[in-house]
Amino acid sequence: LKPFRDLEKQGFIVTRLPVDRQGLVDPEQLSQAIRPDTLLISIMLANNEFGTIQPIKKLAKIAKEQRVLFHSDAVQAIGKIEVDVQELDVDLLSLSGHKMYGPKGIGALYIRKGIVVDPLIHGGGQELGLRSGTENVPAIVGLGKACELVAKGLRAGDPDKIAKLRNYLGERVLAMIPEAWKNNPDFYCLPNTLNLTLPGIRGESLVLLLDRQNIFISSGSACKSGSPEPSHALLALGLSTEETHCTVRFSLGASTTRDDIDYTVEALEELFHNSLGDIRFVPCR
Amino acid sequence: LKPFRDLEKQGFIVTRLPVDRQGLVDPEQLSQAIRPDTLLISIMLANNEFGTIQPIKKLAKIAKEQRVLFHSDAVQAIGKIEVDVQELDVDLLSLSGHKMYGPKGIGALYIRKGIVVDPLIHGGGQELGLRSGTENVPAIVGLGKACELVAKGLRAGDPDKIAKLRNYLGERVLAMIPEAWKNNPDFYCLPNTLNLTLPGIRGESLVLLLDRQNIFISSGSACKSGSPEPSHALLALGLSTEETHCTVRFSLGASTTRDDIDYTVEALEELFHNSLGDIRFVPCR
Repeated sequence: LKPFRDLEKQGFIVTRLPVDRQGLVDPEQLSQAIRPDTLLISIMLANNEFGTIQPIKKLAKIAKEQRVLFHSDAVQAIGKIEVDVQELDVDLLSLSGHKMYGPKGIGALYIRKGIVVDPLIHGGGQELGLRSGTENVPAIVGLGKACELVAKGLRAGDPDKIAKLRNYLGERVLAMIPEAWKNNPDFYCLPNTLNLTLPGIRGESLVLLLDRQNIFISSGSACKSGSPEPSHALLALGLSTEETHCTVRFSLGASTTRDDIDYTVEALEELFHNSLGDIRFVPCR
Repeated sequence: LKPFRDLEKQGFIVTRLPVDRQGLVDPEQLSQAIRPDTLLISIMLANNEFGTIQPIKKLAKIAKEQRVLFHSDAVQAIGKIEVDVQELDVDLLSLSGHKMYGPKGIGALYIRKGIVVDPLIHGGGQELGLRSGTENVPAIVGLGKACELVAKGLRAGDPDKIAKLRNYLGERVLAMIPEAWKNNPDFYCLPNTLNLTLPGIRGESLVLLLDRQNIFISSGSACKSGSPEPSHALLALGLSTEETHCTVRFSLGASTTRDDIDYTVEALEELFHNSLGDIRFVPCR
């Protein structure tokens, strides 16, 4: 599950930058990694697993100075922090409807004026020739409305309130399980993301047990049936394979309340006292 | 706007088969056009402009005998005629939700077991790795339901009733304008499609004038702003460029009534008597 492996199959050379323990890309390392034939740099604005917000403005500036196109995946960031393509000075930026309370099945790619993008889908020439096919008008309108509401601060909730609840949840769980630790950074982090490693506790099992209580969390690793591959993002943070399997993510939203957090903490307490045997770590295969 | 031009850009050789005056592909010509290195044959099940239904079963059999993959675009056909991939014995078949009263923004590709298809969109490996990205669950469910209703004959209307109304409309218009002619074939045709050439009458203008009466038809040519390209499908039927610009398509649906047809005929009569000056043919540029 290496990202961009398909580009390599087509003959492109892909350089993958490391991140530090906070998940941050080092601008100095980016600068040194650029080759004379580098076409494109792609760095996500905020990480989907542990919420790290990259210094995109600084990174995009390096790309510009060296005349390399810069793309940022802002799917996780939009609606949670302010995103301004002019301020960030990126060439390309992608976003998705369902991550900002908009419809599923719709996204957008911001393309700075003057940049020519090759279409993947050919045909009738709809959407400026970049995405041929009958336009999904309801979803397009829905995405536009979602962007409008997010820009007005009407949909995505108060980031400070969400961050406070997120911190409260983290403190309660860490107090409950002294061996646990938090993977999301204290600064440069999305307000809604809490990523915890609970050593000895299998993330997949915790997901299933909390699901019974109508609490929906994610396990850090994309443990697919038959091939349990650890999360490459968590490995890049420096976690061991076993630690990635003991990692879970709690994501808060605009409607999350303090009661929801207390309910979650109580459910966890109950589990850890009564069913711990069920969720002790057993390596996937 | 030549179809598959992008494949040629990538170095593939594309052979385009002619059609006869009915829009039909000749099986003998297909057979002769196959080369030792032919990878794929793609022939639409029913034409979107004039409704011609191809002898797909016969054409797919030729492909199979010569060990070439066979794809059919059934977008226009599903919901209007019976489509059975086993009966047609095709390798690949595409369909689209919004053409069968299902949601927009969703389609499906039938892939015969054992055929390996290369994805266009890479990433998280969703939808068997063929279409990565968060699944558009509401649209997927909607497409499934639309297929179910169409298979039960509950949504797409009675084809015989629709064909009768379509024929009635055609007869009325042809009686009104003696120079006009019909491009859709009498047999092997979708029940809902009426494609008429009205010599000397500009299709684009007729579209706009009927729009004012809440009658929505299409001009045969995809006359885009700035570059009025004639319909390549109509040219393939043998029409001249000028004739393609004088061609319009009426599409009936499950809810079309005889009153709708009478209303349309009256609106046309009114136009032809009173506003003919406005719609006399002026070549686009």
